[in-house]
Amino acid sequence: MSKIAIFPGSFDPITLGHQDIIERASKLFDQVVISIGENSQKKYLFDIDQRIKWIEQIFKDDKNVSVKCYSGLTVDYCKAIGAKYIVRGVRTTADFDYEKNIAQLNQKMSPDIETILITSKPEYSHISSTIVREIIINKGNTSSFLPQELRLN
Amino acid sequence: MSKIAIFPGSFDPITLGHQDIIERASKLFDQVVISIGENSQKKYLFDIDQRIKWIEQIFKDDKNVSVKCYSGLTVDYCKAIGAKYIVRGVRTTADFDYEKNIAQLNQKMSPDIETILITSKPEYSHISSTIVREIIINKGNTSSFLPQELRLN
Amino acid sequence: MSKIAIFPGSFDPITLGHQDIIERASKLFDQVVISIGENSQKKYLFDIDQRIKWIEQIFKDDKNVSVKCYSGLTVDYCKAIGAKYIVRGVRTTADFDYEKNIAQLNQKMSPDIETILITSKPEYSHISSTIVREIIINKGNTSSFLPQELRLN
Amino acid sequence: MSKIAIFPGSFDPITLGHQDIIERASKLFDQVVISIGENSQKKYLFDIDQRIKWIEQIFKDDKNVSVKCYSGLTVDYCKAIGAKYIVRGVRTTADFDYEKNIAQLNQKMSPDIETILITSKPEYSHISSTIVREIIINKGNTSSFLPQELRLN
Amino acid sequence: MSKIAIFPGSFDPITLGHQDIIERASKLFDQVVISIGENSQKKYLFDIDQRIKWIEQIFKDDKNVSVKCYSGLTVDYCKAIGAKYIVRGVRTTADFDYEKNIAQLNQKMSPDIETILITSKPEYSHISSTIVREIIINKGNTSSFLPQELRLN
Amino acid sequence: MSKIAIFPGSFDPITLGHQDIIERASKLFDQVVISIGENSQKKYLFDIDQRIKWIEQIFKDDKNVSVKCYSGLTVDYCKAIGAKYIVRGVRTTADFDYEKNIAQLNQKMSPDIETILITSKPEYSHISSTIVREIIINKGNTSSFLPQELRLN
Repeated sequence: MSKIAIFPGSFDPITLGHQDIIERASKLFDQVVISIGENSQKKYLFDIDQRIKWIEQIFKDDKNVSVKCYSGLTVDYCKAIGAKYIVRGVRTTADFDYEKNIAQLNQKMSPDIETILITSKPEYSHISSTIVREIIINKGNTSSFLPQELRLN
Repeated sequence: MSKIAIFPGSFDPITLGHQDIIERASKLFDQVVISIGENSQKKYLFDIDQRIKWIEQIFKDDKNVSVKCYSGLTVDYCKAIGAKYIVRGVRTTADFDYEKNIAQLNQKMSPDIETILITSKPEYSHISSTIVREIIINKGNTSSFLPQELRLN
Repeated sequence: MSKIAIFPGSFDPITLGHQDIIERASKLFDQVVISIGENSQKKYLFDIDQRIKWIEQIFKDDKNVSVKCYSGLTVDYCKAIGAKYIVRGVRTTADFDYEKNIAQLNQKMSPDIETILITSKPEYSHISSTIVREIIINKGNTSSFLPQELRLN
Repeated sequence: MSKIAIFPGSFDPITLGHQDIIERASKLFDQVVISIGENSQKKYLFDIDQRIKWIEQIFKDDKNVSVKCYSGLTVDYCKAIGAKYIVRGVRTTADFDYEKNIAQLNQKMSPDIETILITSKPEYSHISSTIVREIIINKGNTSSFLPQELRLN
Repeated sequence: MSKIAIFPGSFDPITLGHQDIIERASKLFDQVVISIGENSQKKYLFDIDQRIKWIEQIFKDDKNVSVKCYSGLTVDYCKAIGAKYIVRGVRTTADFDYEKNIAQLNQKMSPDIETILITSKPEYSHISSTIVREIIINKGNTSSFLPQELRLN
Repeated sequence: MSKIAIFPGSFDPITLGHQDIIERASKLFDQVVISIGENSQKKYLFDIDQRIKWIEQIFKDDKNVSVKCYSGLTVDYCKAIGAKYIVRGVRTTADFDYEKNIAQLNQKMSPDIETILITSKPEYSHISSTIVREIIINKGNTSSFLPQELRLN
């Protein structure tokens, strides 16, 4: 049976850190579905179409990576698309504290869906979308933080 | 002299984790006053009457547990009702970092009011009201997270 | 029924931080038994008689504080002396991570024994017996770290 | 190509926490090799034959789980047996801090070997071999911490 | 060459914790520029003129401490005023997790600007502007948290 | 007056992470004295002469960096050589928890000696002497962890 994993997030925007985790996960799973969670309450810097377009450009040659949007509970979405795995990148202990809680909760709700944590590479461990947005807004140099595809835009 | 403790929070909604801490604290203290902090700036999922009603149902047979609302500084409220103890449940290191700060601050302001930390049981350590609200909004199954009294509603 | 708590540790030596937690706990409980765990594998800087003597001197006027030695599992010892509470002081997040584990384990083994965590006062939060021993060995000034009774010796 | 993962540790002794992680990992990988690291400097409570025997009993019906011993660097051992994945269970933030360092180091030395972190289930998050050994030595009840196969011994 | 450091923050309001870090930093650097970051999105309790006035009063006798406002990226501002150092006070592990990320990011963007972390004194480690604002709003006693100059106002 | 800082440690062996912190600190201070703490209780992998020789080779062109040995309390040693600053590199939250305690303790004992924390660069944040020793003992490739001077040996 095909092993499908989702990599959920808002990707506002996708960073070099995300790209690295996705490339590493795509070797382990048959399919990695980058899954953009839509939350009508939240304000985004980049609109959903722009975020999808960047992701498609970055992974256009990677056959087992795709991108989808979703709303509602992550575990319900996993069931709907047949994914048994949730992949999350973890950078800091604060990240871990949060991810552990969510992973345990999801497992209580859906014992057959497993969360897999992958630590970021040291050179990407300080890159978060939150901070990168701040740099973009203030017109700083993002070349060490963003995939080349975003820098061209 | 009677030993009175408050258990402050917003209880939006009360969870199995809260219930467990309150039941354990009620053996140590003569009275535990579940104290719902009201903050006009904050938006709640459940209105105050609903939150009180659930708590009253859960603890209707527990004579030394009661529920009250309050606003203003927690230490001022403690003095007003004669409570010398503040009980807090702690789940994660992030929780602890926050609670330690508040406990030390309250002690500086009112040296005779003591904060008592109780660690959640392992099986409840991943349950937070924030995450449970998310599940409720998305119509997920909350049976492992909420007291039976809330599930009937 | 009398509420008995133990405050376990090796107290090699007792510090101002320990003294503060004990004094605060002695207001909440009817009896606080300072309980020196004996471990034949471990090397101590001060022998057991010296450690007991210091504690007795410090709390000689505090009727509900006493000192005992024990070996074996802490929960077995609690049952033997009728204590239902274990009090622990917590200084840092690393402390908390450790104490939470032990508290949850003890509760699994003996559900009727409760662990109560009290945060150290800010001015004592950097004092650990380990570091104080280092200062003593290197003949540094310990006056900000040790009770007066130890400094006289 | 077959996906082989190792689950390294000293398993002195194997706990319910280990068993749970191994069972969950065995669904994701084609083979999980429980790999007991031998370190001549370290003292163990149970000898290596006993530790192997318990593991074999527990997983005797699980065809894609096996047990091996190794010494030297973990990444060298992975290469020797053709494993591309290292699985680690993570219970606390202190665990994570340590595992992240090791994972990043292993990746620097062998970029093609990936470390996969899985969070323990809440009900096992307080169980460590270190603490369980303490309970065994002091003849406490280990039934909530150890697989049934060990309790029969 | 003169060694200039900035101490950035919103200082809403300046606390005893800030004052301590600034006084300690002013011995190491030739100039410490207290730098109030202006963010039009954020709501402040005290307006910018009030915050500047308090800081000027506190440091009126300290010749190498000054106060300025800035907007935009901190590293761009540093270059504009010739500062090679950013000083940050750190109180808790959560603080550290955050500051480490920002420091690493700033260094990637401007390798010649160095971030220097100083730990708060134990007696100030529980004081944050966030919590102090809460106390002010609720008319609590701020005398242990704020410089004398603010209490007179 | 000349600003002298010590950078204390056991440097068993010095790593790329240490080298980076020292080079960054040497721009801020007039002199950085790499200070090898000698502890007769501890076993080292490399003898003291070897450790000194490596450090001298690495910094032979850096006039304001030198190397010394010391025993006893770090603050006493600082006074003896006229150093007012202690520099420490911090990699993880566990590191920080430890360093904060030591910094606060040293300040209590010697209020005029200041501790300065510098975060490691992301690419060095996973390198610790402990782990590097393990790799050396097991004959792994240390080229990403050790200065070139050590690799030639």
